[in-house]
Amino acid sequence: MLAEIITIGDEILIGQIVDTNSAWMAKQLNDVGIRVKQISSVSDNREHILTALNEAASRADIILITGGLGPTKDDITKKTIAAYFNVGMVENPEALENVQRIFAKYSRPMLDINRLQAQVPANCQVIVNKNGTAPGMWFNEGGKIYVSMPGVPFEMMYMMDEEVIPKLKTSFNLPVIIHKTILTAGEGESFLAERIADIEDALPDHIKLAYLPKLGQVRLRLSAYGDNEQLLKNEVDHYAAKLIERIGSPVVADEDIALEKAILDYMAARNLTLSVAESCTGGYISHLFTQHAGSSKVFFGGAVSYSNQLKESLLGVKFSTLSKYGAVSEETVVEMAEGALTNFKSDYAIAVTGIAGPDGGTPDKPVGTVWIAAASRQKTIAKKFIFGNKRQQNIERSAASALTLLNTLLRDV
Amino acid sequence: MLAEIITIGDEILIGQIVDTNSAWMAKQLNDVGIRVKQISSVSDNREHILTALNEAASRADIILITGGLGPTKDDITKKTIAAYFNVGMVENPEALENVQRIFAKYSRPMLDINRLQAQVPANCQVIVNKNGTAPGMWFNEGGKIYVSMPGVPFEMMYMMDEEVIPKLKTSFNLPVIIHKTILTAGEGESFLAERIADIEDALPDHIKLAYLPKLGQVRLRLSAYGDNEQLLKNEVDHYAAKLIERIGSPVVADEDIALEKAILDYMAARNLTLSVAESCTGGYISHLFTQHAGSSKVFFGGAVSYSNQLKESLLGVKFSTLSKYGAVSEETVVEMAEGALTNFKSDYAIAVTGIAGPDGGTPDKPVGTVWIAAASRQKTIAKKFIFGNKRQQNIERSAASALTLLNTLLRDV
Repeated sequence: MLAEIITIGDEILIGQIVDTNSAWMAKQLNDVGIRVKQISSVSDNREHILTALNEAASRADIILITGGLGPTKDDITKKTIAAYFNVGMVENPEALENVQRIFAKYSRPMLDINRLQAQVPANCQVIVNKNGTAPGMWFNEGGKIYVSMPGVPFEMMYMMDEEVIPKLKTSFNLPVIIHKTILTAGEGESFLAERIADIEDALPDHIKLAYLPKLGQVRLRLSAYGDNEQLLKNEVDHYAAKLIERIGSPVVADEDIALEKAILDYMAARNLTLSVAESCTGGYISHLFTQHAGSSKVFFGGAVSYSNQLKESLLGVKFSTLSKYGAVSEETVVEMAEGALTNFKSDYAIAVTGIAGPDGGTPDKPVGTVWIAAASRQKTIAKKFIFGNKRQQNIERSAASALTLLNTLLRDV
Repeated sequence: MLAEIITIGDEILIGQIVDTNSAWMAKQLNDVGIRVKQISSVSDNREHILTALNEAASRADIILITGGLGPTKDDITKKTIAAYFNVGMVENPEALENVQRIFAKYSRPMLDINRLQAQVPANCQVIVNKNGTAPGMWFNEGGKIYVSMPGVPFEMMYMMDEEVIPKLKTSFNLPVIIHKTILTAGEGESFLAERIADIEDALPDHIKLAYLPKLGQVRLRLSAYGDNEQLLKNEVDHYAAKLIERIGSPVVADEDIALEKAILDYMAARNLTLSVAESCTGGYISHLFTQHAGSSKVFFGGAVSYSNQLKESLLGVKFSTLSKYGAVSEETVVEMAEGALTNFKSDYAIAVTGIAGPDGGTPDKPVGTVWIAAASRQKTIAKKFIFGNKRQQNIERSAASALTLLNTLLRDV
């Protein structure tokens, strides 16, 4: 069963927002055995939307559309969909009641353009939007399913979870796709490929292997296509076990999770705790950990010591160390990590200090110079990195390297 | 001049990664007057890539392709492009030298599959990849430009900045597109639309207005299309000024920047400093500030006080307050904000404490309950929010609300 996703809105095409909806939707569809053939982002333009609908319908049986349903004038999606199906617009009582409910809840006056949100193409089944005023719309025409949803991520997500996926499951007899991902850290894509070449070559035709490299980590993804879920799972598990055995210590997890989540799971299982001391990563490492549910079992928190003053007062870095070696030095990063251990009373700590850029570089310490330390009660390891001159990348690569260093320390001790 | 972007790779279509490249590329293209007609994500499949190339070439003059150029077996892009142009593959000396240079730099053995990366379609001009081994490829065929780049964001970005955009500028006589964005915070899309309806209705045909709502902020974007850059700029500035005057205090900035960047700019201009005390946002607010270059002028850092112990030791929240009112309470958030002011010696502070979920809720304080405070030396304001039950959204909405609260305090005092 094939699906296509069409996202509507000039804001994607001029680069003002990143389309995060499509990846999320694609994942939900794949989980129930629906493959996404293509994702297309098109403009708020009637002719263009019509062309995209025709192209998608020529390739797929399920067409999911997001965006272009807000109350204001730039949203022409609904009328274009009505034209595509050659039907008129009607006011839907359920959708109207929902708009009224939401305005009543927030005690705000309902405007004429809000009432217009209850207008839908005559041939649709309305999907009530519990989190907003724009209704979702389900169409079953010519043997194909079309669903139009708002572009606001949490409105769309709720509709997908509660209505669209369950309805698709009952509408089609779905095939099975099984994905299994192995997370590795610290080894390159080419190195891994060379090590597992014979296993990869021996894979049956209905199982594919993909390499997904990112920031010093490589995800190996096995995908199996067929009808018998249990059989496919067994096959995929069999090949995954062979890969894991062959690759050895770079394997961090046998599921598709973030490296920091693998670390949290590993530490939680051993009742270990963690704190951080972040300078140039500025809270990003803390954010990575705390975005995961249950992180508070392991993660105590820490200091974002952007200024030297806070490095001293929160982490106990000595003034003499900062003046003699500078804020970006092995001596400072070690004192930061050990200060975090002492002051925050955790079993492990990570510290990062560096020059994220674009300013602050010197001939000795150019932009991109970063010192990272990981510490336990027994041992502290520190490592210097020289990244590039792009701030956001330096933050991300510093965080990824800090996680890898902590992972090494955790599993070596 | 129209462009299309094609991103290749199953990892997007199964939802494993979000396509951030396209939005970035679209922004660069728009900045030089090239409109993006469509962005399409297609699979690592020869027939599908060929169809996508044909469809894109039927609509646009510039086709930018990313992804599918890694060293491993799932990457078939290069061969498909050669087939599309009906040419063979050749080893390119410049590309080979680059692969050798990179392996020498990292002192790693070069494998056979790495050498294959220097193979390119015979009709291309190679764009050397300074940050990786996969070469970029520039094709000029049938009056259209095709460019293929690696999917690794910083490799692609460097090629776009250094080679592709400059070459496109000299290849075409480009029209002009001017965008201007007004950032507003704290008012809804419908309310704004109603207030500015007459100004919007009077816009000339070549100027469009779009509403981009997100997390309590609405961006109003004016886009003007034409030939005369100065004239368009004047027109857009004229209408922007009218909108800004009409909307009044919800206007935060007259450029397309993040709310936290607008706050940093405002505070930097007044020599004001900031620290934070984050519980449920877990470093995310610090990360928002510190991702911006120059943030260290304003932002001192702060505490990620995930545990109660760190709320006491880093922020001076009283044990009696935590036991009597709980960690998620007005009393605690006020002590956190005022503790940050005192301990971190900044002019302003933000504090957030809440239950991000999915666990930790009680009947009195359900998941999604968040207390936020903003404090200056003169005044502390605190506000309770009840968000939903999705952790990531609660973190983002808490952060956005904290920024809005700080913005209010900054501009009211």
